[in-house]
Amino acid sequence: MRRFNIKLITSILGLLLVICGLGMLLSVPFSIYYHENWWHIASAAGITIFTGLPTWYFLNKSAQRELKKRDGYLVVTLGWVIMSVFGTLPYLISGSIPNFTDAFFETMSGFTTTGASILNDIEAVPKGVLFWRSLTQWIGGMGIIVLAVAILPILGIGGMQLFIAESPGISAEKLKPRIKDTAKRLWLIYVGLTFVEMILLMGGGMTFFDAINHSFTTMATGGFSTKNKSIAYYNSPYIHYVITLFMFLAGTSFTLTYFILKRKFKKVFANEEFMVYSVFLLIITVVLTGFVHSSTVHEFEKNFRDTLFQVVSIVTTTGFVTEDYTAWSPLVTIAFFALLFIGGSAGSTAGGIKVVRHIVLFKNSFLEMKRQLHPNAVIPVRLNKRAIQGEVTYHVLAFMMIYFLVFSLGSIVMAWVGLDFPTSLSAVATSLGNVGPGIGDVGPVNNFSAVPPVGKWVLSVLMLLGRLELFTVLILFTPFFWKRE
Amino acid sequence: MRRFNIKLITSILGLLLVICGLGMLLSVPFSIYYHENWWHIASAAGITIFTGLPTWYFLNKSAQRELKKRDGYLVVTLGWVIMSVFGTLPYLISGSIPNFTDAFFETMSGFTTTGASILNDIEAVPKGVLFWRSLTQWIGGMGIIVLAVAILPILGIGGMQLFIAESPGISAEKLKPRIKDTAKRLWLIYVGLTFVEMILLMGGGMTFFDAINHSFTTMATGGFSTKNKSIAYYNSPYIHYVITLFMFLAGTSFTLTYFILKRKFKKVFANEEFMVYSVFLLIITVVLTGFVHSSTVHEFEKNFRDTLFQVVSIVTTTGFVTEDYTAWSPLVTIAFFALLFIGGSAGSTAGGIKVVRHIVLFKNSFLEMKRQLHPNAVIPVRLNKRAIQGEVTYHVLAFMMIYFLVFSLGSIVMAWVGLDFPTSLSAVATSLGNVGPGIGDVGPVNNFSAVPPVGKWVLSVLMLLGRLELFTVLILFTPFFWKRE
Repeated sequence: MRRFNIKLITSILGLLLVICGLGMLLSVPFSIYYHENWWHIASAAGITIFTGLPTWYFLNKSAQRELKKRDGYLVVTLGWVIMSVFGTLPYLISGSIPNFTDAFFETMSGFTTTGASILNDIEAVPKGVLFWRSLTQWIGGMGIIVLAVAILPILGIGGMQLFIAESPGISAEKLKPRIKDTAKRLWLIYVGLTFVEMILLMGGGMTFFDAINHSFTTMATGGFSTKNKSIAYYNSPYIHYVITLFMFLAGTSFTLTYFILKRKFKKVFANEEFMVYSVFLLIITVVLTGFVHSSTVHEFEKNFRDTLFQVVSIVTTTGFVTEDYTAWSPLVTIAFFALLFIGGSAGSTAGGIKVVRHIVLFKNSFLEMKRQLHPNAVIPVRLNKRAIQGEVTYHVLAFMMIYFLVFSLGSIVMAWVGLDFPTSLSAVATSLGNVGPGIGDVGPVNNFSAVPPVGKWVLSVLMLLGRLELFTVLILFTPFFWKRE
Repeated sequence: MRRFNIKLITSILGLLLVICGLGMLLSVPFSIYYHENWWHIASAAGITIFTGLPTWYFLNKSAQRELKKRDGYLVVTLGWVIMSVFGTLPYLISGSIPNFTDAFFETMSGFTTTGASILNDIEAVPKGVLFWRSLTQWIGGMGIIVLAVAILPILGIGGMQLFIAESPGISAEKLKPRIKDTAKRLWLIYVGLTFVEMILLMGGGMTFFDAINHSFTTMATGGFSTKNKSIAYYNSPYIHYVITLFMFLAGTSFTLTYFILKRKFKKVFANEEFMVYSVFLLIITVVLTGFVHSSTVHEFEKNFRDTLFQVVSIVTTTGFVTEDYTAWSPLVTIAFFALLFIGGSAGSTAGGIKVVRHIVLFKNSFLEMKRQLHPNAVIPVRLNKRAIQGEVTYHVLAFMMIYFLVFSLGSIVMAWVGLDFPTSLSAVATSLGNVGPGIGDVGPVNNFSAVPPVGKWVLSVLMLLGRLELFTVLILFTPFFWKRE
């Protein structure tokens, strides 16, 4: 018996390349419209599609159509990597990013919806390529919805596990069509919200091109902008508030947004993660606005708006910037550093640790003291008024440990390649959390172009690790994964 | 039924004050010998003893002699606090540290064996007071041995739990005399090693006064020195190596040292924590020596010696300094920052997270991936070839989470009081880990005098939290601790 369903894995990877290539084709009209050399992107698309198509088409027929757990881990990680390799083609062929390291960093940053960039002059890049850049984030966000809803829970990974536990009676077969339906519904919301945001942004005076790019990268909680100054380019409170709202929505569980659209508000208020996420954003914004207002000369509304925007941008792991939050005060800087470790809601496009995990950890830490006093009592963590299985809490704890372990090792490597203390720590935190900007030399008004090549590769790996919830990738590096059963 | 055995608690606190006062009396001969005003310390001793004595003597007879679990938590935390309050008297009365905040910080830093200091000119402080300062660490170290071996395991807290699991068949009654014996044996080793180190240091040319002070603070993994430049004052490789050796021993489980003295070397090699602790120190020293040697002009032996000294000093949470390790290079600085989170061995006087917890966490993280692949298999963490109970692993994970939570909140508070990014993070890490020096403005050649008062109080609390393994203190702040059963 073969260990891996290599045919099926290859065909899925082929399919992903075709999707990737078709995405590139979508960029061609923009190249043509802006009188750029559209042949660059078209040939990138051609190479990608014609690499993917044969493997996909020929293998699809012969492959046994069942994907085992091990195949799942492999295909998810390889999928992200192979798309990031081929996704560099538009940058490389157009010459916008001439070297492969930088192009790979930018593409991985795209597909993982991180938003860290190495481009010093974004506005000098051809529009067609910029559209592709935003599209990588939008595709990545779409991919994450499928992953979070359909694939990771089956592999036993990810925050959604905590909700899956709600219906333990349903077998895998019954779950399958339900998951397909769910995924479709969530995609519709994703596409719909992107469209609405685009219209609203155009209503605020944004060009069609900028509006579609920014709504792509907002809904993906990606954070790539078409402007060098990011959203600070737009001196419009309306645009700032619109983007804030959609970042908030993108960082909210899409299942919950579905309930909101269905007017099932009771479910919304009963959802602990959403309530904590909302209240947390509110409190942090109010507190930080106070500190920001006491240390700047701007009027209150601007300080409130900037603080709200940045808090929502960082917590949802989007990474847009309207103001240099590291210039406000040391306290605010460290607060924003800490916010890199929050992450949005599970089942959204946000990356990072995620609010629901923090809830479980907080509750568990508190209850652990109760367990000390009553060592014989079984005291489970409760979420949304239901007890969580012990193994799930255990898994969340293990996740956090690995997260901090990867963070520590990553920081040391970044110091080794030559970054200073705040830059090392925040470059790793922002990559692993799929946020985008950090503090220090990779702060909101800087970018990652000055990071040495080794550092860029390490950060690319960290983005992937963070995006795929650590386990999916790391499990490939354990001996038992490759052991013949 | 009363909730707390208040009489017994009071009498124990009284006893602690008497011990504390007797310790102060020991400082008087030094004051007299050095022609200082010995009346200062004598009166401090008098106040302390006569506060403690009556409560202790009168209550001891009437109190029911059983200490319940809740009493245990209360008495441990209160004991450390009350000793730190009265321990300020020699500083305050002698005028060496004129304000209470500073004196409390210094005393808490002593009793928790942290070693962070607010003294700008240590050598200007009267010798009698300096002796008291070193003695607070030695008493703190002795207290920790009792705690780690006898009290915390019964309260269900601390790294020793992991070893207690080895003999699950022994009842509390049978354990009691055994624990008493063990504690006595360990004290003997503690006293013996202190004495040997003192002789060896005097053999290297140190005065009796400096030798006794430094051996007190080495064996307690405390790190208070009688010199402004710490151990860098001594330009003697011999002294550096002797102190390195004894820091290493002080950070080794005292039970293990007992086995070494009994020539049961098999037990030593079978002890995973000791092996990891030793090999880790070796590897880190070798690697960092390489980096240090490439960035300084000193000869190889000095670089190796300084690196070894600093690595052992930080990992064992001692905090002595022979060289400004933050001046070596950014990489080395961040490495030393990371080392603040290691901690020595369980059952030693070292503070911090401790090596055994890291072992459990590493193994568990690795096994968690195996559990993903085989969700129905029970895969426990194994330590010293025995399976650890699930709850113990769970407890270690919860400990780590709270550790990082306290670290994060503490860092934000320190930024709020005005410290910069590396200083905030490292001041909190070094206090919580009971190390002493950090990086930035609280680096090895600086001290904590410039930290604002609020910051000093917060750091004092963090030292206590770290020293008492978090739970002991935090449990007092939960509602269920105070609930009538």
